Amino acid sequence: MSSETPFGACPVPFTKNDRVLLGHGGGGQLSSQLLESVFLPAFGNPILNRLGDQAMLELPPGRVAFTTDSYVVTPMFFPGGDIGRLSICGTVNDLAVGGARPLYIAAAFILEEGLAIDDLRRVVESMRDAAREAGVSVVTGDTKVVGKGSGDKVYVTTTGIGVVPAGVNLSADSARPGDAVIVSGTVGDHGMAILAARQDLGLQGTLVSDTAPLNGLVARMLVAGREIHALRDPTRGGLASTLNEIARASKVGVEIDEGSIPLRDEVKGACEILGLDPLTVANEGKLVAFVGASHAAAVLDAMRAHPLGRDAVRIGTVTAEHPNLVVLRTVIGGTRVLDPPHGELLPRIC
Amino acid sequence: MSSETPFGACPVPFTKNDRVLLGHGGGGQLSSQLLESVFLPAFGNPILNRLGDQAMLELPPGRVAFTTDSYVVTPMFFPGGDIGRLSICGTVNDLAVGGARPLYIAAAFILEEGLAIDDLRRVVESMRDAAREAGVSVVTGDTKVVGKGSGDKVYVTTTGIGVVPAGVNLSADSARPGDAVIVSGTVGDHGMAILAARQDLGLQGTLVSDTAPLNGLVARMLVAGREIHALRDPTRGGLASTLNEIARASKVGVEIDEGSIPLRDEVKGACEILGLDPLTVANEGKLVAFVGASHAAAVLDAMRAHPLGRDAVRIGTVTAEHPNLVVLRTVIGGTRVLDPPHGELLPRIC
Repeated sequence: MSSETPFGACPVPFTKNDRVLLGHGGGGQLSSQLLESVFLPAFGNPILNRLGDQAMLELPPGRVAFTTDSYVVTPMFFPGGDIGRLSICGTVNDLAVGGARPLYIAAAFILEEGLAIDDLRRVVESMRDAAREAGVSVVTGDTKVVGKGSGDKVYVTTTGIGVVPAGVNLSADSARPGDAVIVSGTVGDHGMAILAARQDLGLQGTLVSDTAPLNGLVARMLVAGREIHALRDPTRGGLASTLNEIARASKVGVEIDEGSIPLRDEVKGACEILGLDPLTVANEGKLVAFVGASHAAAVLDAMRAHPLGRDAVRIGTVTAEHPNLVVLRTVIGGTRVLDPPHGELLPRIC
Repeated sequence: MSSETPFGACPVPFTKNDRVLLGHGGGGQLSSQLLESVFLPAFGNPILNRLGDQAMLELPPGRVAFTTDSYVVTPMFFPGGDIGRLSICGTVNDLAVGGARPLYIAAAFILEEGLAIDDLRRVVESMRDAAREAGVSVVTGDTKVVGKGSGDKVYVTTTGIGVVPAGVNLSADSARPGDAVIVSGTVGDHGMAILAARQDLGLQGTLVSDTAPLNGLVARMLVAGREIHALRDPTRGGLASTLNEIARASKVGVEIDEGSIPLRDEVKGACEILGLDPLTVANEGKLVAFVGASHAAAVLDAMRAHPLGRDAVRIGTVTAEHPNLVVLRTVIGGTRVLDPPHGELLPRIC
């Protein structure tokens, strides 16, 4: 991965109960052990295996999409995923909602001294599986180790490169009055799964994260309708943040029919108990689409034909009225302005 | 800078003594405050200012170089640099030694709750200055906040994209018998500066990190001689690691004249006191070049004409004998095998 890792050595394999030591981040023979026993068996591919200071890529023609996110979710393993799956899916999704075909991932690890090697391997294997699912390759990386109390087991920063095919132009400022607002499935699943895994809510097992790579779904949508104006994945801040971002960037109003928003009973129940608004709770495998009215039905059909869009539904309309505002028609027949969340609902959700 | 950061809001400016709160990583209005008061004033450029889920880039033709590193150096401010300058230079250098022209940087921050906003601003402004010096733009990013005791002030992960011009082919496996081995200046400066900043060695002020972007120097070298076979920046593990990596990757021997290796008296003295071998101590603004004999003089002249290569000198030769081994001709006339360092000399050096 980086220059400092000697290669060609024959590292000692790990034994059960081995833990991460400071020396595993030092660039010496312990780093080599980690690379050859954990990272290369999972991620190995011809570009990574060169182990240069940098990966060398031949990209297809088109604009290049480039995105980065650090993942610090706690707990690191949760129902429906783990920090490894999240770190691949989150970055793939940030590329996909720009209309890019995700291709390559760089992965940088900050490990806390004392982390069980078996836990690290489980995270790395989960990244490998998610990368296969999304059709991307991990081509370069880095590992640093910090002392006990200077980290929390494992933080992963993934950076993605994708290519936007000619003719695809998605942008947060492109929503137009009349556009249908479509959500790809139930909202709030990820955030509530993390909360349930952290607190003893008596809800374990019923709340499951939706973490998934959306690039396959987006590809189907782009074939089905050219009038897709904007796509976003409603992660931190949930649907409320995303709708407000698009309304402000496009200088349009958005009207949402609250009753049409898909919501699992378990999520609804847990939100009611805790006094949370599910529209502000994070998702990690959902997207919101703003689609020209004439293409909305075709795009919706294409979404429903994909496993990750089975519950896709139109939840509202873009309007010329009340620009920059999102208005919710509530189930009891009233209306209210849906503001973006102000503070921190739940730290370290992703 | 990722999707979750609402834009268009008017955030409250920070006041003196403000500190990072968990909410600054939550994707809500506090995240917006950090973005608009700290990150955008330093990094702002047309690509970043779009604030999409991803940066959209138009790349010139050529192979694309892609590299990532997490920076966890402690202390975060040290003589000759800080974690911000290091995070730009280190990633720029990983691109430059591949022969790439560094172009774009993604920056992901993991902040510890309680970090002084003024310290964060100082790090970010140092990144801005280093990026200008290197001629690269920060085009996308992310911020996460972890609770007190789950981090250490600030960790930065930078990922770089560069483009390798046609005709440039540098690779760790390309050193050939007869090549001159050239180092661009004094070794061990960065590692010893960090050590002195951390321990009270009575050496403060005399030991200064060499952290610098090497892409300008590399560009001059590539013009001066086409027979540059391999370049590396000897960071973690120092010159000893780098020479061994090249020897093994190229399946050649390397003979080094110990007395020719440039070394500051202060570094030499501090290493003697501490029993450290300066050849295993990290550098952050130096490179090692393997150059065909007929081009060595021209490349050396070009290096010496650049401020970061003023002290460049030939330190040895590649041989067909003892493949995979680095042999040091010591100042007292003997020879010894120079092994790569085994363990961790000094954690969190970068």
